[in-house]
Amino acid sequence: MRIRTLLVVLAVAFTANAQTQAPQSAKSLSAKPANQNEAEIRAVYDQWAKAFKAHDLDGIMALYAPGDAVVAYDIVPPLQYAGKDAYRKDYADFLAMYEGPIEVEYRDERVVAGNDVAFVHALERLSGTMKNGQKTDLWLRATSGLRKINGKWLIVHDHVSVPADFDTGKAELDLKP
Amino acid sequence: MRIRTLLVVLAVAFTANAQTQAPQSAKSLSAKPANQNEAEIRAVYDQWAKAFKAHDLDGIMALYAPGDAVVAYDIVPPLQYAGKDAYRKDYADFLAMYEGPIEVEYRDERVVAGNDVAFVHALERLSGTMKNGQKTDLWLRATSGLRKINGKWLIVHDHVSVPADFDTGKAELDLKP
Repeated sequence: MRIRTLLVVLAVAFTANAQTQAPQSAKSLSAKPANQNEAEIRAVYDQWAKAFKAHDLDGIMALYAPGDAVVAYDIVPPLQYAGKDAYRKDYADFLAMYEGPIEVEYRDERVVAGNDVAFVHALERLSGTMKNGQKTDLWLRATSGLRKINGKWLIVHDHVSVPADFDTGKAELDLKP
Repeated sequence: MRIRTLLVVLAVAFTANAQTQAPQSAKSLSAKPANQNEAEIRAVYDQWAKAFKAHDLDGIMALYAPGDAVVAYDIVPPLQYAGKDAYRKDYADFLAMYEGPIEVEYRDERVVAGNDVAFVHALERLSGTMKNGQKTDLWLRATSGLRKINGKWLIVHDHVSVPADFDTGKAELDLKP
């Protein structure tokens, strides 16, 4: 039920920003890896964007570590999603709102990779068409933590948010970078 | 000006949750380090809580990497604070709202540390008294990324937020873990 209201909120935010420029072509995270680990992690995020665009829930979740290793702070309540099963359901609810592809654009992204621990952060734009026909366009802040497990980089932590406007008490759904 | 309104929003949120239990004793991040790097990073966060409680802006900023290495996504707009100077001003504005100590409690914290890259995340409770006499109590989600630079762990990224309630479009300022 929360999610349905989100559709309306996003649609209003989108309408209120009708002056927004047309979506730019999606920016890939695959540019100029400084080392092999960074290249592998950028590939994880390109895979994420591809799976997310295609509503491929299994493809998305294959990028996460198993079981309780995943703890996520999402844009919607509760404060945290503990475990992969809880986070998968959160993803499913989100994807179910959209009709057709969800475009992802990264901006000001940074990958900081050691040999077996890494983190990534970027501004992230999600744009698409809701099942009621409304188009939406939302800039988020996204941070993730990864571990290399059995030779493969897997996500163990996500933090996704918008700032809060304390003048109004509202979530800032229409900011642009 | 935004910040002054925050006082009111927080005070209202606090009043609306008058059934909230009395603040628990602050929980330290110094328990059971799995390795030396984790111990050093937990010490950074204990120093942070101590400096934050004491309004020690220099003490806080000494924990961050210099110059442009710092990029922060704070609970307030804009989407990002790029560089240490911008983030320092953001901290100064926040601390200026409080009269006396700001208590910090961490919960469900996790430190994931490699040899030179690490990330940390926790639910974080801030409680204190505003300059207008109002008491506030706020649970945040906090994620940080660190690098070991010249043998010392320094913070290069923060992401601090509350979820958004899409039923109302409001920022969720009164959630409890």
